[in-house]
Amino acid sequence: MGNTFGHLFRITTFGESHGGGVGVVIDGCPPQLEISAEEIQVELDRRRPGQSKITTPRKESDTCEILSGVFEGKTMGTPITILVRNQDTRSQDYDEMAVKYRPSHADATYDAKYGIRNWQGGGRSSARETIGRVAAGAIAKKILKIVGGVEIIGYVKRIKDLEGVVDPNLVTMEQVESNIVRCPDAECAERMIEKIEQIRREGDSIGGVVECVARNIPKGLGEPVFDKLEADLAKGVMSLPASKGFEIGSGFAGTLLTGSEHNDEFYTDENGEIRTVTNRSGGIQGGISNGENIILRVAFKPTATIRKEQRTVTLTGEETLLAGKGRHDPCVLPRAVPMVEAMVALVLCDHLLRQQGQCGVLKA
Amino acid sequence: MGNTFGHLFRITTFGESHGGGVGVVIDGCPPQLEISAEEIQVELDRRRPGQSKITTPRKESDTCEILSGVFEGKTMGTPITILVRNQDTRSQDYDEMAVKYRPSHADATYDAKYGIRNWQGGGRSSARETIGRVAAGAIAKKILKIVGGVEIIGYVKRIKDLEGVVDPNLVTMEQVESNIVRCPDAECAERMIEKIEQIRREGDSIGGVVECVARNIPKGLGEPVFDKLEADLAKGVMSLPASKGFEIGSGFAGTLLTGSEHNDEFYTDENGEIRTVTNRSGGIQGGISNGENIILRVAFKPTATIRKEQRTVTLTGEETLLAGKGRHDPCVLPRAVPMVEAMVALVLCDHLLRQQGQCGVLKA
Amino acid sequence: MGNTFGHLFRITTFGESHGGGVGVVIDGCPPQLEISAEEIQVELDRRRPGQSKITTPRKESDTCEILSGVFEGKTMGTPITILVRNQDTRSQDYDEMAVKYRPSHADATYDAKYGIRNWQGGGRSSARETIGRVAAGAIAKKILKIVGGVEIIGYVKRIKDLEGVVDPNLVTMEQVESNIVRCPDAECAERMIEKIEQIRREGDSIGGVVECVARNIPKGLGEPVFDKLEADLAKGVMSLPASKGFEIGSGFAGTLLTGSEHNDEFYTDENGEIRTVTNRSGGIQGGISNGENIILRVAFKPTATIRKEQRTVTLTGEETLLAGKGRHDPCVLPRAVPMVEAMVALVLCDHLLRQQGQCGVLKA
Amino acid sequence: MGNTFGHLFRITTFGESHGGGVGVVIDGCPPQLEISAEEIQVELDRRRPGQSKITTPRKESDTCEILSGVFEGKTMGTPITILVRNQDTRSQDYDEMAVKYRPSHADATYDAKYGIRNWQGGGRSSARETIGRVAAGAIAKKILKIVGGVEIIGYVKRIKDLEGVVDPNLVTMEQVESNIVRCPDAECAERMIEKIEQIRREGDSIGGVVECVARNIPKGLGEPVFDKLEADLAKGVMSLPASKGFEIGSGFAGTLLTGSEHNDEFYTDENGEIRTVTNRSGGIQGGISNGENIILRVAFKPTATIRKEQRTVTLTGEETLLAGKGRHDPCVLPRAVPMVEAMVALVLCDHLLRQQGQCGVLKA
Repeated sequence: MGNTFGHLFRITTFGESHGGGVGVVIDGCPPQLEISAEEIQVELDRRRPGQSKITTPRKESDTCEILSGVFEGKTMGTPITILVRNQDTRSQDYDEMAVKYRPSHADATYDAKYGIRNWQGGGRSSARETIGRVAAGAIAKKILKIVGGVEIIGYVKRIKDLEGVVDPNLVTMEQVESNIVRCPDAECAERMIEKIEQIRREGDSIGGVVECVARNIPKGLGEPVFDKLEADLAKGVMSLPASKGFEIGSGFAGTLLTGSEHNDEFYTDENGEIRTVTNRSGGIQGGISNGENIILRVAFKPTATIRKEQRTVTLTGEETLLAGKGRHDPCVLPRAVPMVEAMVALVLCDHLLRQQGQCGVLKA
Repeated sequence: MGNTFGHLFRITTFGESHGGGVGVVIDGCPPQLEISAEEIQVELDRRRPGQSKITTPRKESDTCEILSGVFEGKTMGTPITILVRNQDTRSQDYDEMAVKYRPSHADATYDAKYGIRNWQGGGRSSARETIGRVAAGAIAKKILKIVGGVEIIGYVKRIKDLEGVVDPNLVTMEQVESNIVRCPDAECAERMIEKIEQIRREGDSIGGVVECVARNIPKGLGEPVFDKLEADLAKGVMSLPASKGFEIGSGFAGTLLTGSEHNDEFYTDENGEIRTVTNRSGGIQGGISNGENIILRVAFKPTATIRKEQRTVTLTGEETLLAGKGRHDPCVLPRAVPMVEAMVALVLCDHLLRQQGQCGVLKA
Repeated sequence: MGNTFGHLFRITTFGESHGGGVGVVIDGCPPQLEISAEEIQVELDRRRPGQSKITTPRKESDTCEILSGVFEGKTMGTPITILVRNQDTRSQDYDEMAVKYRPSHADATYDAKYGIRNWQGGGRSSARETIGRVAAGAIAKKILKIVGGVEIIGYVKRIKDLEGVVDPNLVTMEQVESNIVRCPDAECAERMIEKIEQIRREGDSIGGVVECVARNIPKGLGEPVFDKLEADLAKGVMSLPASKGFEIGSGFAGTLLTGSEHNDEFYTDENGEIRTVTNRSGGIQGGISNGENIILRVAFKPTATIRKEQRTVTLTGEETLLAGKGRHDPCVLPRAVPMVEAMVALVLCDHLLRQQGQCGVLKA
Repeated sequence: MGNTFGHLFRITTFGESHGGGVGVVIDGCPPQLEISAEEIQVELDRRRPGQSKITTPRKESDTCEILSGVFEGKTMGTPITILVRNQDTRSQDYDEMAVKYRPSHADATYDAKYGIRNWQGGGRSSARETIGRVAAGAIAKKILKIVGGVEIIGYVKRIKDLEGVVDPNLVTMEQVESNIVRCPDAECAERMIEKIEQIRREGDSIGGVVECVARNIPKGLGEPVFDKLEADLAKGVMSLPASKGFEIGSGFAGTLLTGSEHNDEFYTDENGEIRTVTNRSGGIQGGISNGENIILRVAFKPTATIRKEQRTVTLTGEETLLAGKGRHDPCVLPRAVPMVEAMVALVLCDHLLRQQGQCGVLKA
């Protein structure tokens, strides 16, 4: 259970790292939306392994096929199924992992919960599972763009202690994609790349923070009191592999201010629109979007699987040592960017449909 | 929409700050659980306004009545409804707020979304809404205690820049309740109290961080990939009023470590149980509890309503000034502690029932 | 679990026949709808015991109170809670039933499932539970009327073997309410009333069929393939106490026709609207409303509790005899009419909101 | 929306009659269940077109592939995806249907709702969609058999006015499968087959009634008040294509009896188990299974697509005539049997998991 997300724009992902394939069923997509496998592939390619020298060298083209829901290039309002077949599965890399638990990985908890696990890889806990999310996110992004001109841009804000300087209100997708680490601060990006290469050589791994902005947001999205917009966003990104923290707007740093410093004062702009001078709320007040940019951050821990030797136990509890094999990312952040964007898009699209209804939304 | 939380232990809260009352319907509580209004009242009293000199002086006894679901002191497996009538509603305090939006409050977004709002107070966005959560949390806590000996202890970890030293593995409820700010570090607590009193005198407000630990957790709770335990915990606490950030285990700080520093190495304890040497995972790996203590933190912003004058606009967009009236907490943290505990209890109880089924669970 | 119904217009009912009271929380009602306790009371009075000589003489005024969600006579988009306190609970009538299972009642299954039961009456399985449904249905009806001019009229079609002649396309609420058995065929109604009085004198009970029509239905309601409109209608009415069967359109009788006899041929009406000549589909094709009148029927069994002596067993399995006490309806049909209407209204309203979205719907 | 069914054992079906394929994702299947594509294929073959002279001659092998969720022949607790590729799609048969609405088919309502439709066939409204249900039902059946020895047997009870004599308490799967019409009354089956062949020659179609029994049911399944077992069963089978009515136990006929005739008296059997003498309740009382056999009936209308010429309109509303082409079943009943069994199995399995929890259920 737990493989379905969303209330009106609802996705169900499936698949493990090894086996037939991975994918997603999207239920609730409005009809008459033009969509092609090529458009979805663009996002999948941003998530794909082997895309640069700082990601895993695992080579998978991750080519997607649309199995249902689209006819003559348009959605029909029926479930859209997207499938990516698995390839290049060197399961011999995992022989040792079949009997030894990787520290801070999901091996031990999956065994405890299910009593069975595909030891040939991460199984369902592999980041490969996020292919379905990113594919669905591509469609959510397109709906948001058509209906409200919403744009969602994620980027690497920090790698370990290297923090980029980025203005979320102005950052562009071109800036993000201009380097392989996906940090729009070009100078900092270079240092990040060096750092990741160095850590990979050491057989170790590092983490960091992805920041994401959503712009041109309609007012009124979010359903208090439990389905507040920030609550659903938090759930969405905290369900991504390796995420350890979530912030909206001022986040933890905001707790160091007084109310008079923190509050976003109101004014009326030239169009008569009520706006806020500052945006420490991160675009959400009382769980409902206020039309300002939505800004959030997600902490990703260093990759669990490392080449350095660590203490662990076998399935039967005997203490042993393990040096991870397989081909893993020394830092998940560059590939986590499209995953965060996807989850943000899915949550916003779901709330948009809750507001506007399911059919005809694209005519509005 | 959005007022229901949970999949098998499911609560629906209702009510506004002004009007007939607030409360909760709990659906899915196992039968034959002994429960009394008095036990629930204990938790409500920890959340109650007017409980100390550092909370709002608003005087409400918040006395609860069990309307359904309990017969001769025991639950019947039918929906449990708990009602707290509203009292002491000085709506004249809100006359000015009827026409002026309070900065960083939910006034403007509720108007934008619903086109109507109870201007006599916070309405549904008032912290008063959390009464239903805390009442339901009291029952969830009891189930968790009976079934698995689970105990959930929240406390104030930080007020603005004053941070207490607390060991989550050892902290007791007695230590938490030994002072009015609910920080188990007694010395720090005193400074926190002084700080809050000072900020109140200044007509301003402050925020901070609540930390919460859940101990004696069964292995195997959590449903990947979307209903991972940390994802549901994040949603739960991020739906609380004034929350701006969430961390599990090492959180944002963990991103400053390398994988070899961050990973929790395994060992086998004296009972043959597989355990981790450290607990940077915060008790959850791959979205599933591993039996270690669950440790999380929630950032709460400074209270939005302050006495200090701020710039704002009227309902019709005219710029004006507003100095908040009404009786508000200068710092929500002490009263937020039982709210965080309640949300953690609700999530854990829901996942426990998903694991064990709905009926007969209390016999196990 | 299982006390919540609906996806976007979602109700949760609570309460037992004995105890504090019964009621409902409605989540998802659009804001700015004018609604009063008096309007809701009108529907509750149609369901109320003691309303006529052919219903139970149990005297309860069933006066409702709106606890939340309404401000100055209008809905706020927040959960609406409606409470009816219990009165006149002569639990001594139930002393014998505390130890003997009533045949074809829910006593034994509740005990088997929950291991506990309020023996002072039907508890949660009492028809009293439907108060919450009827109250919520009153609001759903109002929304449907405002948005699309939808009108929902239920009536008694058959009592045992006495079947009325009624044209669902023309029947009026006035005709239904013109007699106490709620059969618009006045002549047949008289014979039905006589029959019910006779059966009551005999200490026995009878059942029958309620038919319900919904007119002025917008095209396009229903969400294939599982939330087809007839599937949700079936679930709604089959969750009513004592219901044993459901038909949409031609129902079981339609299976005696050939396809060429059964199919509803299309034509274009004077407004250029595509219509069907006949309506054996009952207003739904492929799970989606086609704009024709929705017509359905529900079978209700004879009331289980009767005065006539029957064989049964005690809680401990000893065989014994039981002659029901308490004040029960000899025939539930007249009071089932508003219950069926309520469930139909709830389903249609939920699907209307799925189509149109949650907010602003009432402006359209 | 609406393509997901179930609460803990949750299926999402996808696919249209023409396009890449059809299938299902099953979320919530307990781990460690042995399952093979061959076992699933057995059920799919019972549903397959072209299986006999009285079904459509459309030739599709409907061979299934398990894409995820199974490792070394066992379920892993992760989503199970089953895919059947489409073949033999003679879309030229549908040229005329692209511009003319088939009476009593879903063409017109899909166009009204979605504004787009795969005119190459039934699209999503095709009975082909039920492949996913039947595949998932095969797994649900296996779980039910392992855990409680539950067996589910459907059969054709009536074709038009030809009604078989069958004892639901004794009928065997072998009897059902001993003839191509799936009526265990062998003599009646012959007449049914003749009737179907005759009606096919006439270019017409007929309907009938499927009866289904579930035996060895544990007591206590069902979640009042909305998720009563009969309510979920009704929703399940009324979501099947062409279904027009549902009955549980005595159904509509039961309304002709008095309470004293209808009630199921209790007795204690030789094992000390509380049982009922008769079973007019159909195995469910108060929405909860009582351990007796669950017996239900579903009415299926005559197939909408017929060769006989009928009046209809074009997409633009012009009146015209249509004689259906394509290869359609003259009577859906024989192939509807495994579909009804599947829906019953899915509902029972879902409620079993709600009772027993998700993991470890197969060890019990």
